[in-house]
Amino acid sequence: MPKQNSTVEEKLRSLRAEFNTLGVDGFIIPRADEYQGEYVAPYAERLKFMTGFSGSAGKSIILKDKAVVMSDGRYTIQLAQQVDPKHFETADSGSVTTGDWISDNADQNAIIGYDPRLHTPQEIEAIEAKIAGKGMTLKALAYNPVDKIWDDQPEEPKGKVSLFPDNVAGKTAAEKKQMIMDAVKQKGGAGCVISLPDSICWLLNVRGSDIDYIPVALSVMVVNADQDRLEWYIDPKKVPPEVMNALSDIVTVCDPATLDAGLKDLANEAKASDKVVLLDLQRSSIFFKDALENAGASVENAKDPCIDPRAIKSDAEMKAIRQAHIEDGVAMVKFLRWLDENAKGYQLDEIKVAEQLEAFRKQGKNYKEPSFATISGFADNGAIVHYHATPETNKKIDKDGLLLVDSGGQYAWGTTDITRTIAVGNPTDEEKESFTQVLKSHIALASQKFPKGTTGAQIDAITRANLWSVGKDFAHGTGHGVGCYLSVHEESTGISSASKTKTLEPGMFVSNEPGYYKEGAYGIRIENLVSVRDTGRKLDGGGKLVYEFETVTLAPMDRNLIDAKLLSEAERKWLNDYHRQVHDTLSPLLDKADKDWLEQATAPIEPS
Amino acid sequence: MPKQNSTVEEKLRSLRAEFNTLGVDGFIIPRADEYQGEYVAPYAERLKFMTGFSGSAGKSIILKDKAVVMSDGRYTIQLAQQVDPKHFETADSGSVTTGDWISDNADQNAIIGYDPRLHTPQEIEAIEAKIAGKGMTLKALAYNPVDKIWDDQPEEPKGKVSLFPDNVAGKTAAEKKQMIMDAVKQKGGAGCVISLPDSICWLLNVRGSDIDYIPVALSVMVVNADQDRLEWYIDPKKVPPEVMNALSDIVTVCDPATLDAGLKDLANEAKASDKVVLLDLQRSSIFFKDALENAGASVENAKDPCIDPRAIKSDAEMKAIRQAHIEDGVAMVKFLRWLDENAKGYQLDEIKVAEQLEAFRKQGKNYKEPSFATISGFADNGAIVHYHATPETNKKIDKDGLLLVDSGGQYAWGTTDITRTIAVGNPTDEEKESFTQVLKSHIALASQKFPKGTTGAQIDAITRANLWSVGKDFAHGTGHGVGCYLSVHEESTGISSASKTKTLEPGMFVSNEPGYYKEGAYGIRIENLVSVRDTGRKLDGGGKLVYEFETVTLAPMDRNLIDAKLLSEAERKWLNDYHRQVHDTLSPLLDKADKDWLEQATAPIEPS
Repeated sequence: MPKQNSTVEEKLRSLRAEFNTLGVDGFIIPRADEYQGEYVAPYAERLKFMTGFSGSAGKSIILKDKAVVMSDGRYTIQLAQQVDPKHFETADSGSVTTGDWISDNADQNAIIGYDPRLHTPQEIEAIEAKIAGKGMTLKALAYNPVDKIWDDQPEEPKGKVSLFPDNVAGKTAAEKKQMIMDAVKQKGGAGCVISLPDSICWLLNVRGSDIDYIPVALSVMVVNADQDRLEWYIDPKKVPPEVMNALSDIVTVCDPATLDAGLKDLANEAKASDKVVLLDLQRSSIFFKDALENAGASVENAKDPCIDPRAIKSDAEMKAIRQAHIEDGVAMVKFLRWLDENAKGYQLDEIKVAEQLEAFRKQGKNYKEPSFATISGFADNGAIVHYHATPETNKKIDKDGLLLVDSGGQYAWGTTDITRTIAVGNPTDEEKESFTQVLKSHIALASQKFPKGTTGAQIDAITRANLWSVGKDFAHGTGHGVGCYLSVHEESTGISSASKTKTLEPGMFVSNEPGYYKEGAYGIRIENLVSVRDTGRKLDGGGKLVYEFETVTLAPMDRNLIDAKLLSEAERKWLNDYHRQVHDTLSPLLDKADKDWLEQATAPIEPS
Repeated sequence: MPKQNSTVEEKLRSLRAEFNTLGVDGFIIPRADEYQGEYVAPYAERLKFMTGFSGSAGKSIILKDKAVVMSDGRYTIQLAQQVDPKHFETADSGSVTTGDWISDNADQNAIIGYDPRLHTPQEIEAIEAKIAGKGMTLKALAYNPVDKIWDDQPEEPKGKVSLFPDNVAGKTAAEKKQMIMDAVKQKGGAGCVISLPDSICWLLNVRGSDIDYIPVALSVMVVNADQDRLEWYIDPKKVPPEVMNALSDIVTVCDPATLDAGLKDLANEAKASDKVVLLDLQRSSIFFKDALENAGASVENAKDPCIDPRAIKSDAEMKAIRQAHIEDGVAMVKFLRWLDENAKGYQLDEIKVAEQLEAFRKQGKNYKEPSFATISGFADNGAIVHYHATPETNKKIDKDGLLLVDSGGQYAWGTTDITRTIAVGNPTDEEKESFTQVLKSHIALASQKFPKGTTGAQIDAITRANLWSVGKDFAHGTGHGVGCYLSVHEESTGISSASKTKTLEPGMFVSNEPGYYKEGAYGIRIENLVSVRDTGRKLDGGGKLVYEFETVTLAPMDRNLIDAKLLSEAERKWLNDYHRQVHDTLSPLLDKADKDWLEQATAPIEPS
C-alpha cells in the first residue's frame, strides 16, 4: 500500500479534513518548535513537511480554499523554488504580517487554529490585533493536526546530555542558579519558566545533542525562586548518571509528562506568596502563559534571565574560546592551502569546497560539528548573503572569480564563525579595490578603542564610514553575539544599527563581518570574531574606562586581493601584525608544507 | 521711601505672604515664559528676580520654611556664585527632579501652586506622578504671585514685526499655511494651537524684535483647520501696516485679551465636527490644554507642525545663509588678524576680545545682533563648555595659552555660529596634538558621505571615532540644528548620540563642533556650520541615495596649532581646499592689510 500523505495535495486534503473536528476554518504552521530556539529538530519541521519550504524562518497559513507560505527577503528565491504555486501563494513576511494575510484572506468571523506550544504570546497578540476588527478569532488547539497526519514523523530527539566543565564555564551551576534566583526575586517573582535551549544548558553547565549545529538539550526549566528549587523537565533517559550525580544538589529532574502539574504548583506558590510568575513573552510559548494563568497565577513579562549574563564570557570561557580558534585556524590554513593549490585546476565546485573544509575541521581533536551550514558561494552566488549551495545550485569553480566561504565549528569548548573571501585565479582591479575597502572597514572595527557606554550601533556606524565614503554599504549587521560552545547567533550583544541601546561590555564576544555584494557578480565578506576587553586606561582627564576589541579568529586574509596603496600606514600595520600573530600562533602546530604555505600567505604587505 | 522687595529676604517674605490667599503651601518658579522658547524677555526673568540665578535653565521651589534653586550640571558653579545659601538650597536637576524635591521636602498633603502659563502638561504630569503617593497635589493659580510682588517688573516687550521676504524663505506664508492646515487635517484635528515664537515667525514669513539674540515676536497662533483660518493673538501695536497688509489674506490679527474666547471657539468647532484639537504637550503651556478641555474639547498630543518642515531649509534660504556666512567670515578675518597682532602684547582680556569681535561684526551691512552671548574663554576658562565671561571671571590674556571663542551673528537673512581656538604665543606640543586630533574629527564629519536614512547618532559616532582612538572625548553633542535668521539652536535635526531616530535630510543645517577640554588647563572646539546635500549619486548597485555635507562657515583655522604629521593625506587636502575656499571667497571683500594677513593664514599646509 502506498504511503499516505506523500504529496502536497494529499497532505493539504488530510489537514483540511481535520478542520471540522477542530472547529476551525484555518491553521497556522510556524517554523518554530516548543522551545523557540533558532534551530529545530527534524520532528518539528512541520512547515517543511507540509509545504516543502526548508528555510530557517517562515510560516504557512492554510485556509479551507487557499494557503500561503511566507518568509523574509532572504528567502524570496528559495520560496519560489520549493513551494508549489498550484497549492500555495507566497508572501514576503517583511511587508505582510500573518495577521495582515489572515485579515485579507479569511472569511469574516473565521476561526483560525494554532498550536499554543509553537507561538509566543507576543506573536498571538499581534495577529489578534490585526484580525479582531473583522470578527475573526484565533483558537488554541489541543493537538497539532500536522502531527496527526504526518505518518512517518521523526521521533523527538533523545540526545545525551554531558557536563560542561565548571573550570571552563568559570562559574559553577550552583553559582549561576543563585544568580538567577536572585534576579527573579529582585523582580518580585515567585518564579519563572525558561524554555530557550541555550539558556538552560548555560545555566546548568551542561550541553546536549538533540539538534544539529547547536549542542543543546530540548527541555523546560521551572524556576521556583520562593523555594530556591529548579525543576528540569527532561526525558530522564537523556541524562546519564554522571550528569544526574553532578547536578543532584542543584536541580530536580522531572518527567516532562508532569510539566502541567509543575506549572500548577508554581502558580499556587505565586498565589500563596502574592507574587507574580515571570515569563519571557517574546521567547516562550503561549502554552506556558495559558497554563500558569489558568492555574490562577498572574504572569508578568520579563526577559529570560540567562540571556544577559550569558553574553558576558568569563575569563575561563574566553581562554577556552581562544583555544578553539587556534584549532579552527589550523583547519583553515590547511583548507586555504588546499584551495590555493587546487582551485587553479578549475575542477572544484561549491559543495566540494565545503566538504573539504569540513574534512580538515574533522582532523581537529576537539572538533564536534559545524556551528551552521557552510556558505560556499562562487562568483555571483557569493553576492547572495544567506546562500547555501544545494545540488541544484552548486556552481562549478571553472573560471577566475571570488569565492566566499562562511563557516564555523563547534569545539570543546568554543564556537567559531569565520568568513574568508578568496581569489580564484587573477582578481580584477575592481575586485581588489572592493576587497580592500571591506578590509579597511574590518580593520576600523578591529582597531577602534571606545569609552564604556558605547553601543553596538555606534561601532556599526564607525565600521561603515569607510565604505560609505566610497559609495558602498552592506545590507546586514556588522556583527552578532556568539556563544561558548553554544549558539553561533547569541543575542543581547550585537553590532548593528538596531543595537541602539545595547552597550558593549568587557567579555562580550561578537563577529566583525563587514561586506560588499555586487549582485550578479561577486560577494565579499571578511569575518573574524572579537571579544571586548578593558584597556585598563581611562579617557584623558579621567572619567570613562576605555575598551577595545581583541581579535580571536586566526586565519590569513588573501594577500592577492589587497591593493596596498588604498591602505593607510596604520591599516597596513594592523594587517601585518595580525598576519604575524596568525603565523606565530599556528605555525608550531602545522606540518612543513602547511607551514611553508602559511609563511608566504602571512608575509608582510609592503607600502606601495 | 525705599523700594519694596529689594532684598531676597523681603522678596521671599512677600511671596510667602501670598500663600494663604492662594491656598497653597509652596510655589514653583520656572525659567520659562508663556511661549516655551529658548530665550525669555526681561519681564519673564522671574527666577532671576526671586533668586539671583541668571542661568538659561533652572527653577526654584519655594515652600513656607525652605526653598531650593536647581539647574543642570552646566551651572553648578554659577548656582554657587549667584544664589544665597542663607535662603536657598541648590540642587542638580540632572539627578533630582522637581517632583523628587517636593516629595522629599514638602509636608504630607501639601498643595503646591504653579502658574499654568509657564509649564507644559508633560512637566506637570511628571511632578504629579512623583508627589501623588505622599498625598501632595499641584494647584494651577489664577495669577502669578511673583508678578504681584515685583514692583518694577519690566513691561512685556512691544518689538515691531517685520516681513521676511518670500523670495528668501522660498515658500510664501500662504503656502506654509496650506502645509500646516493639511498636516493638522491629516492627523484628524479640527485645529491646533502654536506658541513657539520661532514656529509662528517661520510660518508667517515674519520676524520680530521682542527678545535678544533671536528675532521673534511673542504671540500665540490658533489654527482653525476646519475653517482654514489662522488667528494670530498679538498686540496690534507690534504689527506695522505693511505687515498687516501683506498678511491680510492669510491671518486674522486678534487682540491677546480675546485669546480665551478664541480657544473656546476652537473647542466648539472641534466638538461640532467631532474632531480633536492638537497640542504639543511637550512645548506648549498647560494653560492651553486646560482652556481647551474646560471648553469641552478633546486634546491630542502632536508635535508643533512647524518644527519638521522648518528644519529643511529651502534653496533660497540656503543661498541667503551662505551670504550671511560670507559677511560673518569677513568679520572673523578682521577679528583673527586683530587678535594675531594684539594678543602678543599680553594686554587683552576675555571681555575685550568679545567686544572687539562684536565691533567687527557691526561693520557688516546686514548684521543685526549676536545670535547668543559670546563665549570667550582663555586657558582653563576655555575648558568650561558653557563659559560666559563676566566682570568677576574676566581673565587677562597675559601669557601664552589657548583662547576659545564661540560666537555667532544674526544677519538679514541668516544665522551664524562659529568657534575658533587660537594659540596666543607659542602653543605646547600637547596643545598642538590635541588641536590636531579635534581637527581630524571635524574633518571626518565634514568629509563623510552617507546613505539616505543615516541618523545623527551614526554621524556622531563617526566624528568621535578618531578622538576615542587616542583616548579622548567631549561631553556634548557634535552638532545642533540652526535656523535661518531665527534660533541658533533649532530642533528636529542634530548630530549626537541622542539623535537615534532623526535622519539627516538634504536641506538640514547643523553645526559640526567636536572639541576636547582639559579641566584646569585649556579647551579646544572647532565649529563650522554644514548643510546636508544630495550628491545625486546612489550607492554602488543602485539603492539608497548618497548624501554629503557642505561646509558653509568661512574662516581660517589656526595653522600654528596644527601638527601636520598627524594628518592623513586626505585630511591635509581637505584642510588646504577649505582654506583655499575661505581665501578665494573672502579676499575680494577685504582691504589690503586683511587680505595679506588672510593669504598667510590660509597658505597650504605642507606634508611633514
